[in-house]
Amino acid sequence: MRGAVIYGPKDVRFEEYADPKILAPTDAIVRTVATCICGSDLWRFRGVSPVVQPRPIGHEYVGVVEEVGSQVTSLTTGQFVVGSFVASDNTCELCLVGYQSACLHREPVDGCQAEFIRVPLADGTLVATPKQPAPEYIPSLLACSDVMGTGWYAAIAAQVRPDSTVVVVGDGAVGLCAVLAARQLRADRIIAMSRNTARQELATQFGATDIVTERGQEGIAAIKELTGGIGADSVLECVGTHESMQQSLGATRPGGNIGFVGVPHGVHIRGEELFSAQVALRGGSAPVRRFLPDLIDGVLQQRINPGKVFDVTLPLEEVAEGYRAMDERRAIKVLLRP
Amino acid sequence: MRGAVIYGPKDVRFEEYADPKILAPTDAIVRTVATCICGSDLWRFRGVSPVVQPRPIGHEYVGVVEEVGSQVTSLTTGQFVVGSFVASDNTCELCLVGYQSACLHREPVDGCQAEFIRVPLADGTLVATPKQPAPEYIPSLLACSDVMGTGWYAAIAAQVRPDSTVVVVGDGAVGLCAVLAARQLRADRIIAMSRNTARQELATQFGATDIVTERGQEGIAAIKELTGGIGADSVLECVGTHESMQQSLGATRPGGNIGFVGVPHGVHIRGEELFSAQVALRGGSAPVRRFLPDLIDGVLQQRINPGKVFDVTLPLEEVAEGYRAMDERRAIKVLLRP
Repeated sequence: MRGAVIYGPKDVRFEEYADPKILAPTDAIVRTVATCICGSDLWRFRGVSPVVQPRPIGHEYVGVVEEVGSQVTSLTTGQFVVGSFVASDNTCELCLVGYQSACLHREPVDGCQAEFIRVPLADGTLVATPKQPAPEYIPSLLACSDVMGTGWYAAIAAQVRPDSTVVVVGDGAVGLCAVLAARQLRADRIIAMSRNTARQELATQFGATDIVTERGQEGIAAIKELTGGIGADSVLECVGTHESMQQSLGATRPGGNIGFVGVPHGVHIRGEELFSAQVALRGGSAPVRRFLPDLIDGVLQQRINPGKVFDVTLPLEEVAEGYRAMDERRAIKVLLRP
Repeated sequence: MRGAVIYGPKDVRFEEYADPKILAPTDAIVRTVATCICGSDLWRFRGVSPVVQPRPIGHEYVGVVEEVGSQVTSLTTGQFVVGSFVASDNTCELCLVGYQSACLHREPVDGCQAEFIRVPLADGTLVATPKQPAPEYIPSLLACSDVMGTGWYAAIAAQVRPDSTVVVVGDGAVGLCAVLAARQLRADRIIAMSRNTARQELATQFGATDIVTERGQEGIAAIKELTGGIGADSVLECVGTHESMQQSLGATRPGGNIGFVGVPHGVHIRGEELFSAQVALRGGSAPVRRFLPDLIDGVLQQRINPGKVFDVTLPLEEVAEGYRAMDERRAIKVLLRP
């Protein structure tokens, strides 16, 4: 079969390599129906995170179950499934408290920009749709696999409540999905921080009530002005830089909450500043599996349409062009069709 | 009147100085019935925080209303009152969401190791007891003014829930009160980290179920061993050093919560470690005023007895000896009687 392999900075190749096989009796093999490129894949593409040796890449997927291991009980061949990028048994103590991202038996799901993938702990990781979804739902179901689940977690971690004021820092696909999540959670005011017209427009479609184009201290001042001088109840940090975290700390009211889901690169926080800000910080790799059943239902019932973040669709064999389009910000997020 | 004045490291003097006066129509003058020395006062006594010029010190107090300004409506002369160390109007937007510590009109209440004190924003700051309390309740009511309110906030910030597992880092008066708070909030297991026999004993009286004497990585390993390898649901950080914060981060399970109330000195947190730990951090100066009515009721109904943290009582004029006793850890906390 064929799939994407990253060799180093700016070097993603579409290659023939061995079909995945059932390795453990709890595995499943999934034929991908759609996959995509994540903002976090770009850290390696840009050389910020090292690539030690060539390896398959990608962690977002929807597809059809092709084969199951002997101990898989809840899935059958032919079912359409959505999964998270962290394989989890969904039965351990940490899964049961909703932190499947920290499952005691977790494994990464990797190499998903490919025609077939092996999903470990299939019973715990994959969620089947009630029936084969119509084609128009595929992009939104794919988004649930990571960006929508991650944006949703940002909103949950930041304790977004009905009638609250929310700031979303970051206008990438996760930030845009975070806007959608805040709207679903019935925030009253949703302020998106973006200086890109196309992204501003999608943020507004997703429920943003205000747009702030300033950044840094000016951005904080703009948020304060919009919130009676005190800051927002919840701030959703969807970037991962030191600057975006500082902006988030400055934009949150005392007693408010920051949910941070941008993978941090060089972020450091002084205890003194967190103490005096009196805000709560919760972040991490989103426990997407916790939210998947609700998110899938939301897509199929047309409450949410996060698939709109895919503004470019390419055949899987053009995956390298997809990376370039996202790296150069010509695309918000690229969907790949095997 | 007479009160304590700090001149510099190891130099607290008991001196005659001018009686406080009503400066704003919302002020009250309180005759102190009891006051005490806080662990945070020791930062200046030890020279860690600078003393730029001699100034009255102390921020914990109970007493009797001596005089009220013309705009004070809820208090009358002769009432027994307990107040927080932050004066707050209790009506602004931040007070209404429970963050009186960040009140838009907040002022510090200072110079409380004295016979009389001026309390700004008296209506919002002071809580009167239903009647004059019997003498045996005075120490516990005084504790509500800071240490018990702060320990309570640590437990609230760390989201202590019924049947949960809690770790308390720090065996000072705040840490001990945090144990008491966790017990009141019906935690199932409360692990106190302490290597001092007297403090271990009080922790046990307050509800600790386990004592861990190790610190650092060994302390974390001991907590992991007591919690099935995953860490505690809630960790209450009541010290404020970088080491105690690291210990707290290591002792919390993924998805768990840290409440930190030790005033940070040199604490720094990497975004990456917080992201991978998947824990929430909330800290700051406790909004004691939020909890005062319940805590006072708890004392008078004998549900809580935080006054036990006072293991030394001295006449106010011996305040300097009180500082020495706490500095040398001969006393957990010193109560001063004017």
